Amino acid sequence: MSGALDHLRVVLVEARNPLNIGAAARAMSNFGIRRLRVVNPYQVAFRQARSAVGAADLLAAAEEFSTVEEAVADSALVVGTTAVGHRELLHPLRRLEAGVRLIRKRLPEENVALLFGSERFGLSNQDMSHCHWLMTIPTRSEHSSMNLGQAVALCLYEVVRSGKIPLAKEAKRPARAGEIERMTVMLRDILQTSGYIKPREAHSAETKVRRLIRRMPLESRDAQLWLGMLRQIRWKVHSSEEKTK
Amino acid sequence: MSGALDHLRVVLVEARNPLNIGAAARAMSNFGIRRLRVVNPYQVAFRQARSAVGAADLLAAAEEFSTVEEAVADSALVVGTTAVGHRELLHPLRRLEAGVRLIRKRLPEENVALLFGSERFGLSNQDMSHCHWLMTIPTRSEHSSMNLGQAVALCLYEVVRSGKIPLAKEAKRPARAGEIERMTVMLRDILQTSGYIKPREAHSAETKVRRLIRRMPLESRDAQLWLGMLRQIRWKVHSSEEKTK
Repeated sequence: MSGALDHLRVVLVEARNPLNIGAAARAMSNFGIRRLRVVNPYQVAFRQARSAVGAADLLAAAEEFSTVEEAVADSALVVGTTAVGHRELLHPLRRLEAGVRLIRKRLPEENVALLFGSERFGLSNQDMSHCHWLMTIPTRSEHSSMNLGQAVALCLYEVVRSGKIPLAKEAKRPARAGEIERMTVMLRDILQTSGYIKPREAHSAETKVRRLIRRMPLESRDAQLWLGMLRQIRWKVHSSEEKTK
Repeated sequence: MSGALDHLRVVLVEARNPLNIGAAARAMSNFGIRRLRVVNPYQVAFRQARSAVGAADLLAAAEEFSTVEEAVADSALVVGTTAVGHRELLHPLRRLEAGVRLIRKRLPEENVALLFGSERFGLSNQDMSHCHWLMTIPTRSEHSSMNLGQAVALCLYEVVRSGKIPLAKEAKRPARAGEIERMTVMLRDILQTSGYIKPREAHSAETKVRRLIRRMPLESRDAQLWLGMLRQIRWKVHSSEEKTK
């Protein structure tokens, strides 16, 4: 089981309170999940978080990243957590139990990144655009926002709850988030250069493109094929852009 | 559902950290459970806990007790939580999922008290002697001790997870913990006066008697019958005690 659980990355995005990072680390240790990643944490002193009772090693081994993109680059499935609330979601949303069933299926073979947003704002739309889908804990709609450490504990409990994760079968290797992101950047570049994306829509268009690509279930070798095609197209649109100047 | 959930009492015994009490309150609010009870909390200021985001009302309405006995007096089922660890347990122990199934069956008709011990020591043997059985969250044996707020959140999530709790059926009313405790006290008194309990064993004997009585599934009317019988026996042993003096 520990093999499969080592494929799970808990990614805390812009967590502000070292106590919460410590509490997340402690819950990870309780449930035997070791890979903690933090994106741009607000306090450098997070590694000393006192609430990480019994999980100091895990916290010391946490990896720091400055962007979500880098933190999920080695994962084939990227899942964001959200309290939903009033925000309009542009992603498929699954309840914790149903979502975790899908995560458990992927864990034997692939890395899965589970993202948690900041205490006050949760994940931004930009953060979510890196996710394949979103997951929510079934709370009361009148008070849906959970404490970060508790939300992490609940998700990991649900991953571990139903017992051992089966061993990997021989399977096709899905595309990694890093490959997908390179496709995204290239496609956006092409769409911009070709005038499909207007300059003043550039930001929202990038997010749209990122979601579009993440909706396609891609194998790694197909991603490589796509990357080759896109590279060629990019060269073409750039060279024709030169000529028209 | 809210009717059944109102039968659930979350009882924090000697919690030391107001942040944890606040986090427990917040998780209760997230899952729609309102009855918080604290036994002998270490800091009077717990009601202002800032970590109770969105649950200030719930915290303000928390009931304070100076003993576990009083805090569980109106409950027909009293369940303690424990990380197990190295302690020798004298109670039946159930994993969270199995335990919650039993709790959910009782909630439509009866009050259920769910006890959590202090951050450092958990529930004492004395506290546990008030419980019918114990429940544990399935953590790694190498690191089983959970953060209090996270443990509360997990237990409540599990209570709510599998959906609505069915409505009450017409049923016999099980004995309340208050009735059971009166039986316990009377029986101990009788056993002491009759010399069954030696003075220097008085404390451990009381705990044994308490567990003994809690192992019997008693209806309320039977508890009343017992109380009447015990009252009579007590009168008898005391009066014969008088005569031998």
